[in-house]
Amino acid sequence: MLEEMQADPARETDHITSFIRSELEGAGLVKTVVGLSGGLDSTVVAFLCARAVGKDNVLGLVMPYRTSSLENTSDARHVAEFLGVRREMIDITPAADALREMLATDDRIRMGNVLARTRMVVLYDRSAAHGALVAGTGNRTEAMLGYTTLHGDSACGFQPIAHLYKCQVRQLGAYLRVPERILTKPPSADLWEGQTDEGELGFSYDDADWLLFNMLDKGRSDNRLEAMGFEPDFVARVRALIATSEFKRRMPNSLLKPD
Amino acid sequence: MLEEMQADPARETDHITSFIRSELEGAGLVKTVVGLSGGLDSTVVAFLCARAVGKDNVLGLVMPYRTSSLENTSDARHVAEFLGVRREMIDITPAADALREMLATDDRIRMGNVLARTRMVVLYDRSAAHGALVAGTGNRTEAMLGYTTLHGDSACGFQPIAHLYKCQVRQLGAYLRVPERILTKPPSADLWEGQTDEGELGFSYDDADWLLFNMLDKGRSDNRLEAMGFEPDFVARVRALIATSEFKRRMPNSLLKPD
Repeated sequence: MLEEMQADPARETDHITSFIRSELEGAGLVKTVVGLSGGLDSTVVAFLCARAVGKDNVLGLVMPYRTSSLENTSDARHVAEFLGVRREMIDITPAADALREMLATDDRIRMGNVLARTRMVVLYDRSAAHGALVAGTGNRTEAMLGYTTLHGDSACGFQPIAHLYKCQVRQLGAYLRVPERILTKPPSADLWEGQTDEGELGFSYDDADWLLFNMLDKGRSDNRLEAMGFEPDFVARVRALIATSEFKRRMPNSLLKPD
Repeated sequence: MLEEMQADPARETDHITSFIRSELEGAGLVKTVVGLSGGLDSTVVAFLCARAVGKDNVLGLVMPYRTSSLENTSDARHVAEFLGVRREMIDITPAADALREMLATDDRIRMGNVLARTRMVVLYDRSAAHGALVAGTGNRTEAMLGYTTLHGDSACGFQPIAHLYKCQVRQLGAYLRVPERILTKPPSADLWEGQTDEGELGFSYDDADWLLFNMLDKGRSDNRLEAMGFEPDFVARVRALIATSEFKRRMPNSLLKPD
């Protein structure tokens, strides 16, 4: 089933690298900065950026928190070394813990948002310091499900893989020769110990990708989706996630009259 | 000249309060949170929100930094007291100073962005804690000139005054009986001591408002604007500010095909 979603990775790479160059040109910049988590999405984006503008024009920024998995941090550093891009590491713990205390919260979700947003502050500051455009690392699956932090991990200057579902990002990663351990590790926002995206969402990315593809790209009705074998509850849950996260995918409304 | 830009403030107030109620309804929420700086824009927004949904459904959040003007902080508290809305004060100094050290910067502009973004993190956390939608406090003048911090002061759930130029916000404030000292104080982002918007921009808001109105609302050409008496350098400068800040007013580009 997922095969139907696969594109030609060579052509996709061409498209995306042209897009990256044109976005930088539009912004009047030559450099880009990628927040590297050690996960699949940011790794694929770093590979694409290095291809698009050359390793000397890419900054890989690693931003661990004290609870971040050491394995992820080490994978992130390894990606930068492997590509030969400039690497910087800034531990976000002092700022994030100051915020934790100021906000008097141990709530996991709220603290996850604080971490994602603290990373945004650091990433945007480095982007200003280096004259580099922030590369987005969000994929289409997480954007549609709203599995992102507004003004946090979703904040960027351009979105090179936002049109790709998670399985398509993985396919592209394999083509680009992303290290096997990164291709196969369970996706995780690593906002607390033991977190996995699929555990938190309650379904697998493969199932979500296949449903979203049929729902959005093929425009199939709920009846049709159920006839294909999707559970009605799963379809309803995903439709609800899409609807309730719509505000994350658009500018806030105003009373400005369109011209 | 600015008279031509003035609207009917009673009608404007009706429009905006309906908009606020409809935005909250759309988000499935009853409360809104406003970051109060003691300046005109956030004060007018707080007045409008209290009118729209009642004082018990408005949270005024005051977020001073150690260099913030005591006068502004006191004005912000006074606004919340005057309206009778719930007030919360969170000093952002611990997090902002941790970031300053982590980023090893004393650059005024970059530090200004760090402060604006740290306030966003706090504002969004309080919005989650209270189930309240973040009210935007940006006006059209600063948005068009790009005089905002992306993912900082411009971050919000809805934009009640984004369609109004600065002079129109002031007119509305007078109608709403905003305290005189807030109506007349020089606009300032208060990101460092002695900062004023007009000093930093190098022109007055009245001049910018009148130019933007003729440029954008009336669609007048540069020749026409110069015939009206606008300095060519001023027109060119403002056109350049509009163009280079366009990225702040839209979602980042992606390769997603529109449906």
